[in-house]
Amino acid sequence: MLIIPIERNSPVPLFRQIYKSIATLINTKALLPGDRLPSSRKLAQHLELDRTTVYRAYEELWANGYINSKPGSYSVVNQVFPQPMDSEAQLKTEINWADKIEAALESVSEKQAVPENCIDFKSLSPDPKIIPAASFRKALNHVMYNSGSYLLQYQTNTGYPPLLKYISRRLKQHKIRVCKNELITTQGVQHALDLLCRLLIKPGTKIITENPTYPEALNLFRYHKAEVVPVKTTKMGMDLSHLEKLLKKEHPAFIYTMPNYHNPLGICTTMEHREKLINLCAMYKVPIIEDGFEEEMKYFGKAIPPLKALDTPGIVIYLGTFSKIAFPGLRLGWIAAPSELISSLIKLKKLTLLSDNYVLQAAVHQFCKSGQYNLHLNRIHRLYRRRMALTLKTIKQIVDGQKIQAIWPIGGYTIWVDYTKCSITEMEFNKQLSRYKVLISPGKGFFVERPREKTFRISIAHASEEDIINGIAILGRLLK
Amino acid sequence: MLIIPIERNSPVPLFRQIYKSIATLINTKALLPGDRLPSSRKLAQHLELDRTTVYRAYEELWANGYINSKPGSYSVVNQVFPQPMDSEAQLKTEINWADKIEAALESVSEKQAVPENCIDFKSLSPDPKIIPAASFRKALNHVMYNSGSYLLQYQTNTGYPPLLKYISRRLKQHKIRVCKNELITTQGVQHALDLLCRLLIKPGTKIITENPTYPEALNLFRYHKAEVVPVKTTKMGMDLSHLEKLLKKEHPAFIYTMPNYHNPLGICTTMEHREKLINLCAMYKVPIIEDGFEEEMKYFGKAIPPLKALDTPGIVIYLGTFSKIAFPGLRLGWIAAPSELISSLIKLKKLTLLSDNYVLQAAVHQFCKSGQYNLHLNRIHRLYRRRMALTLKTIKQIVDGQKIQAIWPIGGYTIWVDYTKCSITEMEFNKQLSRYKVLISPGKGFFVERPREKTFRISIAHASEEDIINGIAILGRLLK
Repeated sequence: MLIIPIERNSPVPLFRQIYKSIATLINTKALLPGDRLPSSRKLAQHLELDRTTVYRAYEELWANGYINSKPGSYSVVNQVFPQPMDSEAQLKTEINWADKIEAALESVSEKQAVPENCIDFKSLSPDPKIIPAASFRKALNHVMYNSGSYLLQYQTNTGYPPLLKYISRRLKQHKIRVCKNELITTQGVQHALDLLCRLLIKPGTKIITENPTYPEALNLFRYHKAEVVPVKTTKMGMDLSHLEKLLKKEHPAFIYTMPNYHNPLGICTTMEHREKLINLCAMYKVPIIEDGFEEEMKYFGKAIPPLKALDTPGIVIYLGTFSKIAFPGLRLGWIAAPSELISSLIKLKKLTLLSDNYVLQAAVHQFCKSGQYNLHLNRIHRLYRRRMALTLKTIKQIVDGQKIQAIWPIGGYTIWVDYTKCSITEMEFNKQLSRYKVLISPGKGFFVERPREKTFRISIAHASEEDIINGIAILGRLLK
Repeated sequence: MLIIPIERNSPVPLFRQIYKSIATLINTKALLPGDRLPSSRKLAQHLELDRTTVYRAYEELWANGYINSKPGSYSVVNQVFPQPMDSEAQLKTEINWADKIEAALESVSEKQAVPENCIDFKSLSPDPKIIPAASFRKALNHVMYNSGSYLLQYQTNTGYPPLLKYISRRLKQHKIRVCKNELITTQGVQHALDLLCRLLIKPGTKIITENPTYPEALNLFRYHKAEVVPVKTTKMGMDLSHLEKLLKKEHPAFIYTMPNYHNPLGICTTMEHREKLINLCAMYKVPIIEDGFEEEMKYFGKAIPPLKALDTPGIVIYLGTFSKIAFPGLRLGWIAAPSELISSLIKLKKLTLLSDNYVLQAAVHQFCKSGQYNLHLNRIHRLYRRRMALTLKTIKQIVDGQKIQAIWPIGGYTIWVDYTKCSITEMEFNKQLSRYKVLISPGKGFFVERPREKTFRISIAHASEEDIINGIAILGRLLK
C-alpha cells in the first residue's frame, strides 16, 4: 500500500493531501507509468477516510493528467509530460496566422468593463436590477422538468413552434400579421443581420442606412464588404427625396432603418413618412430591413404601427428581439419576412449552426405564456417612463435650451444631444466628463460619414434616478 | 355593463367564454373602436367570477389585437383588421427574392422526421433515454438561483471563464495543454467550422479533406466557395504520400481531419500516422483542423493522443463539443488553437453574435463541476461499449465475412460497411431496407468525389440492443 501521510488537523483539505502525495510519488518516479493505484475503496479503508475523499483526489489526479481511470477498473499512472504554467507563453507557432486570417476585423473591440462608481449614460443594456431572473429560472425549470430530454435533442432551425406562435400573436398587437412560414428565430438582432447580410450582400453591394446609425450594424455591413451609402437624416427621419435619388442611382440591396426610437437619435418617424417610405421602396423594388428592437418601449403619445404593419407590397424584413426588454444575455430574437426569404434563412441556420437550441426558446415561451412577460413589460415600462420623464424634465431645468439642441424621444432609452453652440470644445468636454466619471457615447462613432462634432447620445437604460439627476447636473455645468 | 352569458357547466373554459362574447361584440360592431371595456375587477364582480379569469380573457383579446390595454388604465377596443388564416397564402411580394438571395444553399436540407417503428442505424444523436436531462435541470436551476441576473446580461465572446478552465483541465486528460488565451467556446462543431471558414477561406481557396468525410462540413466548405480537394483515404487514414503531393501542389488553407472514430469510416489513425501528419503539415505550413468530437468515446484498446497533443509546431486547431456525449441540442463546443487565431475568433463572434450566452455555459460548468459529467460519461460509455460489442459480434455471426468488408471501430458510434462483393444491387438493397424499415446512411453521400457504390454507414447512437440484433439479422439476410 502507498505511504500517504495524512494530517487531519491541517487546513489543507484531505483530498488535496492525498492528491499532493501521489503527484509527488509520480513526479519523483516512485510510481512509474503503468503502475496501478489501489482502488479508492481500499485506499480509503487503509487511510481510514471516507471513500469520496479518495475518489475526489483520484479525480484531480486524472484531471491533471497524472493517472488514467477507467470505469470499473484500476487507475493507472500515466506518462507525465512537463506541465507548462498557465502564464507561460504558448508554443511558438510555425504559421504566420495574421497572413492567413481574413482582415476586416480590426474595428471590432470587446466590450469594455465599466469603471466603478460611474454615472453610466452609455450602456444600452437594461438595468440588471430589473432583469426577471427569478421568474425566468422558474420557467426554465418548468420546461426542463416537463420536456427536458426532448429539448436537449437536435432540433430544426425554424424555431420552437409554440414560441413562434406566441411571437406572431405578439406581433399582431403591433398590427403585424405573419403566417407561420414568415417567421424564424435568431440569436438576437446582430445574428439576424449577419444572416441577412450573408444572403443579400455580395462584395461591393451597396446598402443604404440612416446617418447616424447603429455602429454594430455598420461594422457588420462593412465586414460583409458592402458599400454603405448614408441617406441624409434629420429629426424627421430619412430625407425621402434624397432617398429617392439614391434608390434611383445606387440600386442598393436593402435599406436598414430604425423607424421607432432610432439609435442613436431617439426619433420616431410619422405615419405619413412610413407610408411614403414603403411606397418608394416598393416602386424601386428595394427591401427594407426594419430594426424594431424597442417597439414595445413607448412611454408617451400615440403608437405608430411599424413599417411591417404597412407592408402590403411584401418588402419589409422585420427584426425583433427579447434582449432589449428582458434578457440581453439570452440571445433570442426573430425575423418576420416573406416566406421565400425565411426558407433560405432556415437553410443558412442549418448550414452554419446545425440545430436550434430549444431549451431557452421553450423557457422564454413558458415565461411569456404564464403572463410573466406582460408583468415584466409593465414593470419595465413604468420604470423607464419615470426615468425618461425625469431625464427630460431635468434637462429642461438645468441645461441651457438656447445652446443645446436635444431630440425629445417618446420611447426607448436614448436621447441625442447637439452642443455645437456651446463654447466648450469636444476634447475638453470629454476630458471633464471622464474627470466627473460620467460616461456618454460621443456622437462621432455613429456616423457613416461626415461625423458631426459636439454631439452625443445619452442612454437611460443603466442609470438610476439619482444618477440621472446628478449626471445631468454635471452635463449642465459643462454645457453652460 | 356588457351582457356576457356565462355557462358554468360548459366544457369551454370560462375565460374563453368571456373572450368569445367580447370578440363577437367587437366583430359585430356592438363595441366600436375606442369603446372602453369595464375594468377586469368590475367585470369579475358583475359576473361573479375570479378576477384572474377576466384578466386572462382580456389578455387573449389583447394578444389577438381586439383591444389595447395600458397598465393602470382601461382597456379600449381596437380597430379590428381582417384576420388572415394561418393557411392562407401570404401577401404577394413585389420583390423577386430568388434573384436577390445568394445561391449555394440548395444542398441544405432540414432534418427529416424518422418514421415510427424504424430500426434507426442512421441518427448520430445519442439515445434520448440517456440524455441527462434531470441532472442538467438541477445544474441550470443552481446557476440561475445563484447568479441568474448576472448570467442574463450581455457578456464577452470568449466563453464563460470557469467553463473554459474546466475544458482546459479536461483537455489535459487527453494530453492537450492549452493556455487560457488559446481557447474559445462555440455553439458546437458546425459553428466552429463556420467561424474558421470565415477567417481562413476566400472564394477559390483550396482545402483538403479525407474522402469520404462528414457531409455537413463538406456543405459548409462549399458554401464558403472553397475548392475541396480529397486525399486518398484507406482504413489506415489519409494516404500520407498522396497528401504530401497535394500539399506541395495545392497550397491549401487547411486540412480537415477526424483522426479518432472518423465519420463515416469509424477508424482511428496510429500514433505514427499522427506524428508524420503533423510533421508534414508543419513543413508545408498548413494548419490542421482536428474534429475531435468523439474523443471520449473509446471502448476498446489503447488511447492514442489527439493531434493537438502532439502539436509542438502550433499548427493544430482542435474542435471539441458537448453535443455527442451529453447534450446535442445545447449547441456548446469549443476551439483550442494558437492565440492569434483565438483573438480573431473572439472578434468574429462579437461581430456576428454580439454576446455569448452564459446561462447554458454556466449550467454545463456546474454539471461538470458537480461530477455529473463524469458520471454520465461512465454511464454512456458502458452503454455504448456494450452496444458496439454486440453489434460487432452480431455482424460476425450473421453476415458473410467473405463478401462483406467492415471496419471494426474501437470507439465512437459508427461502422462502415462495403458490400461490393454481394450480388444484391444498391437500388434493390435500399428498397428492401425501406421495406423492412431499417434506416442506414448510404455511403455515397459522404464522398467528395468518386462516390463508392455499395457502401453504407451504420450508427449505433440511436439503436437499442434489440434493434441491433433485429436490424443486423435483416442486413445479414439481404447481404447473403
